[in-house]
Order: sequence, then C-alpha cells, then structure tokens
Amino acid sequence: MAPYEALIGLEVDAASPEEARGRLPVVNAVKQPAGLVHGGIYPSMAESLATRAMTEAVAPATAVGHSSQTSFLRPVLGGHVHAAGRPRHRGRSTWVWEFDITDDEGRLCALVRMTVSVR
Amino acid sequence: MAPYEALIGLEVDAASPEEARGRLPVVNAVKQPAGLVHGGIYPSMAESLATRAMTEAVAPATAVGHSSQTSFLRPVLGGHVHAAGRPRHRGRSTWVWEFDITDDEGRLCALVRMTVSVR
Amino acid sequence: MAPYEALIGLEVDAASPEEARGRLPVVNAVKQPAGLVHGGIYPSMAESLATRAMTEAVAPATAVGHSSQTSFLRPVLGGHVHAAGRPRHRGRSTWVWEFDITDDEGRLCALVRMTVSVR
Amino acid sequence: MAPYEALIGLEVDAASPEEARGRLPVVNAVKQPAGLVHGGIYPSMAESLATRAMTEAVAPATAVGHSSQTSFLRPVLGGHVHAAGRPRHRGRSTWVWEFDITDDEGRLCALVRMTVSVR
Repeated sequence: MAPYEALIGLEVDAASPEEARGRLPVVNAVKQPAGLVHGGIYPSMAESLATRAMTEAVAPATAVGHSSQTSFLRPVLGGHVHAAGRPRHRGRSTWVWEFDITDDEGRLCALVRMTVSVR
Repeated sequence: MAPYEALIGLEVDAASPEEARGRLPVVNAVKQPAGLVHGGIYPSMAESLATRAMTEAVAPATAVGHSSQTSFLRPVLGGHVHAAGRPRHRGRSTWVWEFDITDDEGRLCALVRMTVSVR
Repeated sequence: MAPYEALIGLEVDAASPEEARGRLPVVNAVKQPAGLVHGGIYPSMAESLATRAMTEAVAPATAVGHSSQTSFLRPVLGGHVHAAGRPRHRGRSTWVWEFDITDDEGRLCALVRMTVSVR
Repeated sequence: MAPYEALIGLEVDAASPEEARGRLPVVNAVKQPAGLVHGGIYPSMAESLATRAMTEAVAPATAVGHSSQTSFLRPVLGGHVHAAGRPRHRGRSTWVWEFDITDDEGRLCALVRMTVSVR
C-alpha cells in the first residue's frame, strides 16, 4: 500500500489491464466542511487504481498520471465511495481509463477520465 | 480547517474572490509508490482553495465543485506543493478558476482548471 | 439543419433523451493539413448531437454547451466519422453525455465528454 | 491554409513557439440553431493554431492533437471570435497550450486547454 492510499483509506478490489476497482470508507477525514466527501478523493482513487492496474502490463516502463477530468454529479455522504474503471484505450504511450464513481446504493456520483503515460 | 484539508496538510495563504493560494508540505503520506507527490493532491488543493475563496462572495448560496481538469507536467519530489489560482469567470451559476501548481523553485508542475457551482 | 451542422456535413441518426447518434462523411473539407480528420470535428459532433437530443426533454428551457473534454486516440482518414453518445447524468441544471467516436471499422478514435447546461 | 481552416474561415495572426493567435469572422455558417457561434469552433481554433505554432519547433517530428478541454463562458453573437494562446508546457512528448477566446469587445467567452503530442 502506497503512503497516500493508506492516508485516504483506499482498498483495492481489482487491478488488471482489463479493469480497476476499489472502494474507500467514508470517514470524517475525507470530508469537506459541509460534510460531503471531498471532490479530490475521486481523481485520487482513479489515479491510484489505474496506475496500479497497469504496472505489470507496462513493465519495465512505468505508468505515470498524465491528465484527468472529473465531473461531480451527486454528493456522497456516508458508506463507501466505489470506483470502477476500464481502459478505453491502451496505446504504446498513453492509456485512457474511464471510471464510474458510485455510492453504496449504486448511484452514479462522479465520472473520472484518467489518462496515464507509459514511460 | 476542514477534515480532509487537515489530512493532506493544506495551508491556506489567500482566499478571496480575486485569488486563492495555498501550499502543502511534501511529507511521505502524500506520495505515491515511486516517491512522487500523488496526482490526486493537485485537484484536491484546487477544489479546497477555490471553494473557500468563494464562500463569502456567494453566501447565502454555497460553492460546490462541478468539474475539474488537471494536467500533470512535472513531478514534485520534496519541499512544498504551491497552488495559486485566480477566477477566470465569475458567473451567477458557475465560477471557473485556473490554478498553477509549482514547486519550491517556482517550476510549473501541474495545471488545474476548476469549475465550481453556485447553489 | 443548423448552419454549422450543414457546413461540416453532420447527419443525425438518433436524437432522444436516451441516446444521440450521427455520422459525418470524411471529405477533404474536414481535414487538417496532414490529411486526417481535424480534431475539432469530434467535439463539434458531440455538442450538436447532445443539444439536439435534449431539446424536447428540457423545453421550454434550452440546452447550451457548458464544457467538453476530448481525447484523441486514433486518426480517421476516410469513410465516415461516427459519434454515439448517451447521457450519464440528467440533472436539473446540467446533463453529462459521453460519446464514443469511431470509424467505419468500428475502431474507437476519440472520446468526448460533453456537459450541457439547461437554462 | 488547410481545408478545414478554410471551411470555418480561420485567419492566423501569429504562430510561433511563444504564442498563437487567430480570429474568425462570425458568419451564419459557424452558428448553431439559436444564432450563437457553435461551441465546436473554439477547440477547432485552438487545435489549428497550436499545431501550426509548433510545426517548425518540433520538426522533423509532427504535432498532433492529444486532448482538449473547453469551458464555454459567454456566447459570441457577431463580429469575430478571437483566440490567443500560449504554451504553458513544452515537453519532449507533449506541449500544453492555454487559449483565451474573446469577442470584439475583449470579453472572455471561452477557455481552451489544448494538449498536443510531439511524434
């Protein structure tokens, strides 16, 4: 577990070149002042999950975040934040992942498009 | 200080409708496995700083993250991460902020475009 | 047919609140200097298709582009450009659509995330 | 002049590794149904201007669009659309440009962040 992943409490459920999935318990430490999960959590989860899922497939090259775009759709107030992504493009120099962020009821709460460089 | 801001160690240096600035010490807890600052830190800083900077100006409405786009340009390995943003658009329903993320040497390390809803 | 849609040659195949689909013949006029379809065509198609698809559903309000993010994955050299989108979020103030851009062989050539305001 | 640039009427005013500027007369052909300039025009201008501005600097490699993000802030109804950009990052494999889109009164109408690959 990388230090930042431990800090935010990310649990990795799947990390392969075909999919990346994880979740994060909604504790007080990941909230913003109004009591919602902080928006920075979603691209954080996507980047951790995508780069882990690529590690073996791209070795000995490494996977490094290139850019991300996040749309916030619905706040998460409790339970878990779930992130499930799949690679839409696996190129030699970049992979593009799309993640759905959902809550415990399966409602779509955010979308993250994560582009990862292969170096 | 909101819980998540305390968790990642964000220090707010300026938060007004004209600018938002802050920094974050690079400790082990904000790093990814290769020892670089985790990319999720940059949109996290931008969202915290932008929404704080808008709080008074939009009251009694509230400022809530709508979307963000982050481009990673150069890793940060130590020292501080600095975020400096200004609003490029202050509309009735959304504000758009642009943040430069720099290191202690002033090198540009990431760009974040943060759109915030006024509700 | 709106003027710009006629200019670029967009043909609309489906435009409902559940999906938006269209295609565009690859003629010389939509190409950049190296002979590939110009990247501006993809967000253009997505915006036209998404706003048309929303028109009835949001009336008497109107659908206006809010932001878009496009990732270019593979050039299109001939045949048609196909765009197929579905709304991932249908909120009161914004809808978020995701479009896959493909060529005649069905290969994924670009991704467009299009956010549309309801006003 | 490339075919698509001629189609939309782009006039290039500056194209160097330090800046890229151009404008486009607002004729009927670039409008959407409600009479506003179609949103697809803005990323189109940015991509054309950025890639042209890089051509000499990156030769014999070529500049190819990688991704773009556009935020629409204010409609353009007449006169010209002006695009002015500068590179925020000039890396070996990608350049990142930021464009301000303005109208004849100098009002900010859109923002485009354009990432270009060097291949």
